Amino acid sequence: MNLFYTEKIEGNFAYMSEEEARHVVQVLRKREGDELRFTDGKGGMYTGKIAETGKKKCVLEITERKTEPSPPAGGLHIAIAPTKNINRYEWFLEKATETGLAEITPLFCAHSERKKVRLDRLEKILLSAMKQSLQTHLPQLNEPIKFSEFIKNAAAEQRFIAHCEADGDKNQLKDALQKGKSVLILIGPEGDFSPEEIAAAKAAGFVPVALGNTRLRTETAGIYAAAVTAAMNL
Amino acid sequence: MNLFYTEKIEGNFAYMSEEEARHVVQVLRKREGDELRFTDGKGGMYTGKIAETGKKKCVLEITERKTEPSPPAGGLHIAIAPTKNINRYEWFLEKATETGLAEITPLFCAHSERKKVRLDRLEKILLSAMKQSLQTHLPQLNEPIKFSEFIKNAAAEQRFIAHCEADGDKNQLKDALQKGKSVLILIGPEGDFSPEEIAAAKAAGFVPVALGNTRLRTETAGIYAAAVTAAMNL
Repeated sequence: MNLFYTEKIEGNFAYMSEEEARHVVQVLRKREGDELRFTDGKGGMYTGKIAETGKKKCVLEITERKTEPSPPAGGLHIAIAPTKNINRYEWFLEKATETGLAEITPLFCAHSERKKVRLDRLEKILLSAMKQSLQTHLPQLNEPIKFSEFIKNAAAEQRFIAHCEADGDKNQLKDALQKGKSVLILIGPEGDFSPEEIAAAKAAGFVPVALGNTRLRTETAGIYAAAVTAAMNL
Repeated sequence: MNLFYTEKIEGNFAYMSEEEARHVVQVLRKREGDELRFTDGKGGMYTGKIAETGKKKCVLEITERKTEPSPPAGGLHIAIAPTKNINRYEWFLEKATETGLAEITPLFCAHSERKKVRLDRLEKILLSAMKQSLQTHLPQLNEPIKFSEFIKNAAAEQRFIAHCEADGDKNQLKDALQKGKSVLILIGPEGDFSPEEIAAAKAAGFVPVALGNTRLRTETAGIYAAAVTAAMNL
């Protein structure tokens, strides 16, 4: 089964983007009258019949629509430092979207080697992973932000920092999670958060958590956090 | 911190492989008298002083040794179909090794597009991920095997098949897992297990489980299973 995506829904008609239309019409060779399933990325799941096609055009007449519930209690927000090798970050984005999360913030930290990300490229990965995993909620990808700025205003019912330093009162994420509550988890770059960042996060109310008992790479920490939070909320 | 690896330990001396020695001597520029930590991949964690070096030679005199406990109850065994794009499989191997597992079996299934894997290449990934994550147990990588052969003799205290078909009695892996028991999880290729394979596995005593509520790619299913099993056994 394929799931398609468009944001542009007006009345009983949905209009695919040029890229999605090209895929549907030229690659999959769908024709007028064919039925497709698509989502608006905001919880809507639609069935539609193709009403009109062109090389880069595909208009659908909606035949069925339903809304899927939001992720529990606002879901999971991971704020994570982009990795030096961007492939690793993109892999995290794909995998975390597949297991399901609500929001991602690229975080620039004291030890970050990478200072830039291309949001348009990352958006495409999220979109593709959402469709691949048959989900109807597109994770929100925020503008990159400095760690010190981010922790000032970051809100969630549960806020964790997954740093790698020894820290007496660190619980495992699995045990710290409370089912149904919104969660924000901070994950640092290669080289971890700086001691000053850890202290500032704790002062701002973030609770240190451990992600298992092995040393994880940044992107593995992100995937572990996403998978375990998704599982604990089932 | 770096962790190194060698299997060749005789009395009070450890002998690194040519590749590891080259890395230590030529890349990291370690010299006689320098101290290193290394593992034998079987639970042993050693500290040693470099006693002798050459371009591809590094002999260490052991100054400290301790043995880390085995993973709980024999740990986790994932039998998983190699993906068409081998990068995705290698990514799974790296990530699952980081979060921790005991054994991996490449499984050739009815819907497998890939019929070959290079075990030597995969072994290197496991070794590197074990060192990276500071672990002392190298996951055992088995010879690839046909699904029908594998399920005949596959043993573990808990045996699951993570197929994607609708199946009335399917529990979530998170709920089906019993802490401390050895676990074997079957994960299929792109296109899932065939109905015949699912029936055969069930007849052989494998219990169907769900890996969350989204449709996961093969390698994502593998990472999810590894992360969630590791977390539930903490």
